[in-house]
Amino acid sequence: MRTVYVNGEYLPETEAKVSIFDRGFLMADGVYEVTSVLGGKLIDFEGHRVRLERSLNELGMQKPPAFDDLLDIHRELVRANGIDEGMIYLQITRGSAGDRDFAFPDEETTKPTLVLFTQNKPGLANSPAAKTGIKVISIEDIRWGRRDIKTVQLLYPSMGKMMAKKAGCDDAWMVEDGAVTEGTSNNAYIVKGNRIITRQLSHDILHGITRAAVLRFAREAQMEVEERAFTIAEAQEADEAFITSASAFVMPVVEIDGTKIGTGTPGNVATRLREIYLDESMKAAV
Amino acid sequence: MRTVYVNGEYLPETEAKVSIFDRGFLMADGVYEVTSVLGGKLIDFEGHRVRLERSLNELGMQKPPAFDDLLDIHRELVRANGIDEGMIYLQITRGSAGDRDFAFPDEETTKPTLVLFTQNKPGLANSPAAKTGIKVISIEDIRWGRRDIKTVQLLYPSMGKMMAKKAGCDDAWMVEDGAVTEGTSNNAYIVKGNRIITRQLSHDILHGITRAAVLRFAREAQMEVEERAFTIAEAQEADEAFITSASAFVMPVVEIDGTKIGTGTPGNVATRLREIYLDESMKAAV
Repeated sequence: MRTVYVNGEYLPETEAKVSIFDRGFLMADGVYEVTSVLGGKLIDFEGHRVRLERSLNELGMQKPPAFDDLLDIHRELVRANGIDEGMIYLQITRGSAGDRDFAFPDEETTKPTLVLFTQNKPGLANSPAAKTGIKVISIEDIRWGRRDIKTVQLLYPSMGKMMAKKAGCDDAWMVEDGAVTEGTSNNAYIVKGNRIITRQLSHDILHGITRAAVLRFAREAQMEVEERAFTIAEAQEADEAFITSASAFVMPVVEIDGTKIGTGTPGNVATRLREIYLDESMKAAV
Repeated sequence: MRTVYVNGEYLPETEAKVSIFDRGFLMADGVYEVTSVLGGKLIDFEGHRVRLERSLNELGMQKPPAFDDLLDIHRELVRANGIDEGMIYLQITRGSAGDRDFAFPDEETTKPTLVLFTQNKPGLANSPAAKTGIKVISIEDIRWGRRDIKTVQLLYPSMGKMMAKKAGCDDAWMVEDGAVTEGTSNNAYIVKGNRIITRQLSHDILHGITRAAVLRFAREAQMEVEERAFTIAEAQEADEAFITSASAFVMPVVEIDGTKIGTGTPGNVATRLREIYLDESMKAAV
């Protein structure tokens, strides 16, 4: 039985509930973060905290009362649930005003809802998928226009995962106006020679915390980084492809829409970046 | 204290809760309907029931066990809460599998969540706003691409209402590729002479139950109906403008982006359609 956190209380997971009037439930009026745990420590915690604050600001959502205690809450959940490798999920919604209304509730009387829970994933860093690579399909990107805000409007990404599963694949890359935006829950990359190509930051994609770290490590390792959009056709002809996310770290992509990428096995650049990212992140973990 | 319905139970509203693992809360994986109550009876119940079923089908979501009892549940909530005029809100989510995963849960073990609650609105049919008309602003439509499915991904419509409020207006009309799609929670119309113009059905807009009824009544009253997209500029030069929704019925729009429509007062067509809609709907109420 997991211990989870809901608005100041540590509770058994089966007792962790929110009002049916919570705006997260009624209107998807909420944001989230997922932070990985390796060796019992938090990976890139500060990056996630800063992005969370940005998401709240972009939506004009106030911080929950416990915002300054987030590191302590994360650590307490890691401790209480004995997490060595896994993830911590955090969600903040605009709270429950006790009824449904499109208009935002009064901030004095309605405080944000704060929920956190752990997911125990032994072997997360040594995922077998990282050794074989994953297969993706392409689907149209029909999400809303502010994907840089990490909201809980995840229905289409969920549908995308199911489309991939149905096609015998692991994930979907989304395509808008002919160019790849990102994966359903990760940023997308291709490699040509010594050059890593990934879409530039904008409202069109999530500003991945892992993306920022991996690009920094890539530059430090003298790799070239080009931030621009690319097509599925270009990706299929690339030497390598991979994704990054907080829980997948760096994950090679070996097939796109049935076409093998390079040799159809994880490439050297992706493999090396995964090693560097894991090494450096674990050193900096808190 | 309202009595609300949650998964087979009638509960005091303060005890009405869902798991933090409910996919409605974590992933906006849910759909909804709002049905009006006039004279203690349900308006267009069958229309809402059919659309609800369509939303579920489009998302591959199973019906909750109580689906065939929805009319009884609506009526019991009207009775228990003594609703003469108001609304009943209904939401179905893909349920809680006890953890978070983008992939849809197993349908055998995870049943949909069904929630209903009433909103008491005395005077709903005689809204003062219908006599003065409402003012709207235009905003960009950045919602996802399947607005025909009535999902709870309502963050942007909420933001739109707040933008309107900030501008001293009542609502926002959303514009995509230069043409009006719809209001934040209603369909949008303009009137030129004896002709009613409203955007054709597609994935771009909600297939309004009130829209369907009003267009039928308009045709029966020998008005011309043209289903096509229109621009804000065309709307500003129209004789009249109005919106329709389950709870606003037919509501005149008298100003768009600061420009008065026609005389700046509710037009004859909108006023007449509101009367017809209310008369006919109350006759057919169940």
